[in-house]
This record gives sequence, C-alpha cells and structure tokens, in this order.
Amino acid sequence: MRIVLDASGGDNAPQETVKGAVQAARAYGYTVVLVGQQERIRAELTRHQTSGLDLPIVDAPETVDMEEVPTQAVRRKAHSSHMVGLRLVQAGEADAFVSAGHSGASIAGSFLVLGRMPGVERAVMAAFLPRLSGPPALLLDVGATTDCKPEYLLQFAQMGSIYAERVQGIPRPRVALLSNGEEESKGNRLVQEAAGLLRESDVHFVGNTEPKDFLVHDVCDVVIADGFTGNLMLKMGEATVALLLRKLAAEMRRAPTLRTLLALAPVVGLALLPGQGRWRALAGALAGSAGLLSVGIFPLWQLYRATDYRSYGGVPLLGIKGVVVIAHGRSDALAISNAIHRAGETVEAHLQSAIAEALSTSQAIESHANGRS
Amino acid sequence: MRIVLDASGGDNAPQETVKGAVQAARAYGYTVVLVGQQERIRAELTRHQTSGLDLPIVDAPETVDMEEVPTQAVRRKAHSSHMVGLRLVQAGEADAFVSAGHSGASIAGSFLVLGRMPGVERAVMAAFLPRLSGPPALLLDVGATTDCKPEYLLQFAQMGSIYAERVQGIPRPRVALLSNGEEESKGNRLVQEAAGLLRESDVHFVGNTEPKDFLVHDVCDVVIADGFTGNLMLKMGEATVALLLRKLAAEMRRAPTLRTLLALAPVVGLALLPGQGRWRALAGALAGSAGLLSVGIFPLWQLYRATDYRSYGGVPLLGIKGVVVIAHGRSDALAISNAIHRAGETVEAHLQSAIAEALSTSQAIESHANGRS
Repeated sequence: MRIVLDASGGDNAPQETVKGAVQAARAYGYTVVLVGQQERIRAELTRHQTSGLDLPIVDAPETVDMEEVPTQAVRRKAHSSHMVGLRLVQAGEADAFVSAGHSGASIAGSFLVLGRMPGVERAVMAAFLPRLSGPPALLLDVGATTDCKPEYLLQFAQMGSIYAERVQGIPRPRVALLSNGEEESKGNRLVQEAAGLLRESDVHFVGNTEPKDFLVHDVCDVVIADGFTGNLMLKMGEATVALLLRKLAAEMRRAPTLRTLLALAPVVGLALLPGQGRWRALAGALAGSAGLLSVGIFPLWQLYRATDYRSYGGVPLLGIKGVVVIAHGRSDALAISNAIHRAGETVEAHLQSAIAEALSTSQAIESHANGRS
Repeated sequence: MRIVLDASGGDNAPQETVKGAVQAARAYGYTVVLVGQQERIRAELTRHQTSGLDLPIVDAPETVDMEEVPTQAVRRKAHSSHMVGLRLVQAGEADAFVSAGHSGASIAGSFLVLGRMPGVERAVMAAFLPRLSGPPALLLDVGATTDCKPEYLLQFAQMGSIYAERVQGIPRPRVALLSNGEEESKGNRLVQEAAGLLRESDVHFVGNTEPKDFLVHDVCDVVIADGFTGNLMLKMGEATVALLLRKLAAEMRRAPTLRTLLALAPVVGLALLPGQGRWRALAGALAGSAGLLSVGIFPLWQLYRATDYRSYGGVPLLGIKGVVVIAHGRSDALAISNAIHRAGETVEAHLQSAIAEALSTSQAIESHANGRS
C-alpha cells in the first residue's frame, strides 16, 4: 500500500504530518510518500526513528493558502503539494492521496487531476458522526457540492451506501434523508423530490430523519443532505460542543475563590480538628476527593474521545477516479495517522468498481423506465 | 395586557399550561385568557390559588392532533383552541396568542385569521440561541418558510433586526447570514444572492457567519437562514446536547461496580485503618467527596439552565398582523409562563408599526432604484 501524504498541508504541518506519517508507516506497514517542501520534511524526519520504514519524499515547493480560491489555486500552482500528490495517484505511482490542507483545493485538484467517475454527476464528501451506540453514522455531502439537484442526492445515497457496506462493514445500510421532520410532508422541495427518487431506487431507503433520530435513536446508518446543509450540520455539532465546554469553563472561573473555598472547606476544617486523628481526617478528605475525581473524569475523557474528530482521521471524497481522504485542518499526528489508515482501508475496499456498477444498474433501470433502453 | 393561552396545546396540557398561566398572571399582572376544553381547564384551575388573578376561560372543544396537516386542520376545526384563540386577537379582544400545541397549526391559523402584514412576503419564526456571553442570538427563520427566495431572507433580516432592537434591547443589531464559511465566495446560491441584497439594504449586515462564530465568538446578534436550514440548526444543537448527556450516562453505567469500588476505595480503606482516628479519616473522605461534588455540580447545573429552552419560553412569529408566540411542545409551567411574558414584551414593543415602516422604506428605496418611483 502506497499512500501519498500532503506533508505541507494543515495547521500543524510539517511537524505533525511527518510524525503522523511515521506512526502510520510503523503501525500499518504502508509506504507513505511525503509530498511537500523537501528540505523541511527531511529536517523533520531526522527527529524520528525511521529505520525499516518506507517514507520517500517528493518535492513540491508551492503551497496553497487558506484564502485562495480553490479552482484558481490548483490551476496556477502546478507544483503545490496538492497537485504533485494527486498526479502521483493519477500516474498509478500511489494508491491514495491524504491532505489536511486547503480542502477546497483537494476537491478542485481531485476533479482536475483524477476526474469524476463515469456517470457520477457530482462528487461527495462523507463525514462520520458519533452515535450513542454502534459504528459512526455516515453523513454526506458535507461540502463538496453546495447546490444540489434531487438526482445528485440519489447518487450520494448510492455511493454512501456502498461505502458504509464495504468500508464500515454495515450489511444493507439504512439510508435516510436529512429533513426538518420525519413525516413525508416535511422537508424542502429538494428533499421531497429526492425522497421520490430514493423510494424508487435500490437503496435501502428508510425515509426522512431528524438529527436526534440518527445521533441518539439509531434509526439509520447513512444520512443524505446537500453539501450546504450537511456542512452546517457538522459545524453546528462542533460549535455546540465548543459552547458547552466554554460555558462550563466560564462558570468554573466565575467565582473561583468561593468555589475553591467550598471545595477546600472540609479539608481545612478537618485539618483544624484537635488531636492526632486530624491528619487522618485530612488524608481521608484528600483521598475522598481523588476517588470521586477518578469516577467523574474517566467517563468525561471517554466521551471526549468518542466525539473527537481525530479518531475518524479524515473524510473520504467519493465519486472521483481515485482514493482521496480529506483530514481536518487542525489534525495532529494521531489524526494524520488515522486518515492514512482510512485511506488504506478505502483502497482495500475497491469502491470504484462497486460504485460504477451501482450507478450503471441504476441508470439502466432509469433508461428502461423512460423507454430508452 | 390580555394574553390568550392555548390551554389545550402541548404535551403537558392542561396541567402545565394552566399552572403556567396562573404563574404568569401572578408574576406579571396580565389577564391570561385560557382557551380550550372548558371543563378540563376549570377542574385544573381549582387546584391553584387564583384569588385576585384574572383568568377567564373561553371554550374551544376541538383539538388539533400532531399528525394533522396544518392547513387542513385549521380550516376544518373552527372550534379548535388555535382558531378560537386567534379570533380573539383578531377581534381586538386580546393582545397576543401563545400556544405550545401543533406549531404548524399556529402558523397556518395565524395566516388565515390574522393575515400577513402588508408588504411581508413570508412569515418568519425567530428562535433564541444561547451564547457564551451576552443576550441570546436570534436565529430566523426556524421553520415558518421552508423554501426561500433571496428577497424573503432580506425581509427576515429586517424583521429580526427590529425585534432584536425593540424587544431584546440591542442597539443597531449586527445581522449575519448563516453560511458554510465566512468568505464571500462561500454559501449556496440563495445565500450568495441574499448577501447581495443585504449589502444594499439599511440592515447592519456584517457578512456570512458559521455556527461557532455566533455561538462562541459573538460576531453578530441576528442570524438569517431559510426555514429548512434554520430548523435543522436548532435540532442539531438539541441533538448534540442530548447525545453528550446520554453518552456520559452510558459511560457511567458501563462499569458501575468498578467505578463505585474506585470511588469508595479510599473511604473503605481509611475506615479499615486501625485506631481511633479512622472514623475521622472516614468523615474526612466523605467531606472531601461532598466538597468536590459541590464544585463540579454547581456549574453543570448553571450550564444546563443557560442552554435550557424553558428560559426563553417561546419563539415569536413575525410578519403577521398580531402577536403570536409559539412555545415548545414539551413546555412545562415555567416555559409557559416565560412564553406569556415574552408575548407581553412583544406587544409592548409595538413591532408592527416598526416593521411596516422598515419594509415600506426598503420598498421605496427599491422602487427608486428600479426607476419605478
């Protein structure tokens, strides 16, 4: 397995990207091709133990800045890490491309260099949503195609379904349309028309779904939305968690002296007790606090891990001729290593042929229905 | 101030609705007209101390079920609490209508009985989003108009801006468009076209905004979205909080014996110490645990209150000829009382004339620009 990593891409590049590549090469036995500014990557590699690992470097002197318009950037900067990396995949010199850099440039570059699969109308980006139980739910599109037609949503459903089955190992995935209510009468015009197409399709369509239904009540495995709404859903989830954590921190800070006194009161009070036993009492107070902390903090930490984007590493871009995984801009080494692993799993799943087959069957049915066969 | 309450509407009617009405009548000195099934309301009222309070009952024997299609229900059920209540407002016998019942029926009934304000293209429902600091942000539309044109979003911005200024007391509210990125190039077609209209308008438009920007970073006071996206944002926020709380509960349950042992270990260990001091040590352990709990639990409770929909009571429906406040279906007495108070504040703010003025100015500008004046 040869995975190309955009070593210059992301907020923490090249330190964390190179570190993540080393981790992935060691953990999964992959060859990780590091594309980016050669000297910086080489310097970074010397900080790690890399004997026995296959980590070739390919120079790409240009970088795409976050402010650049993606379609222009990829055309102008042929020597950017995005373009050099994608060309390696296109030439068959690597199996997949992973980047935590400008995601718009990854998408635009994928179109330009790899191209859309035959029959695919628009590419789609699939994200993983933590659920109360079971594997994460797949939400797509989360930003590749902002304005959608009902036919695009049907294709997203077909591609998402195949991904969930082949990569996540969910047999006959339940597919739902994101809507502002479960009832058939709910939804905007796009959702209502897409629902009609999905009911006629060979996708296992279970109807409309609201956020609570799939996050908490496990009603489906794959959630379909246009790229604008899907992207905002991800961002609203992240923002809500951020708001909760900051509110909590703000509350803790609001009356720090009072709170600290409250917490210390029993400890101090017991320490001031007369007689020899007071040191025992003090030790008891400290031990009691520590015991309670261990109970409270462990589940909070588990929770944080479960909702942490780093566990999922990156989101696959589907519908293009090649495997591309887009990692979070804030990725650290763990997230990069997981994204590389996800790319490897996606390559092994041979999605391309399955998607091509599903779309051609669907188009054959449609042609037949329209009397064009 | 005379507020009509749909006493039959909501999951907890009539117990909580009547209780909330009694609370509001006492707290704010309002006359609260209870509309609904007369006998049940009367029976419920006897459970409360109501001397000196003005709580007239108006009979409305029919109820609208959650499964009914709103536009059909309001036409068929002329004696439903929605329709009877709204007719009281229309006849000038009350100042505002509040309902925790079928929100679609409240909206459809408002159109039918009260009608849209002249010049208003579509009505809009405004919700309150908790923020890290300051008053809540206003998000509109959250479900009155699912499919929107750019001109609707402009009117939502005008109405929301007036509401934030007059009712929330925010001078020159900053208005932003909800988008999948702050950059002008981001957003779907609707957002991009609406941004053009907003830049030309007299609304204090500050550009596009992402969820984190307005929930955490306080970049704006009023957020504009189509009713489909806005509604889903609210639901995604609620679902994320629900997921976090349930994950936490599930984690706590996962290994209860181990956790309990861990927490009790210091207590038990200290109790088994030889000598007289062990009882002191045990008391210390318990006191230490209690002290820590008081520090941890208090901010969590504050946080819960801050993000609790009940504090906001209800969301106003803007753009219709009358004051209508839609309360959460799960409202308890506190939420009902707050919704009634919100209705009273909205009446006092004289929004109708301010909105009419803003829209007519805007239309005059537009006509002038189009050479039609």
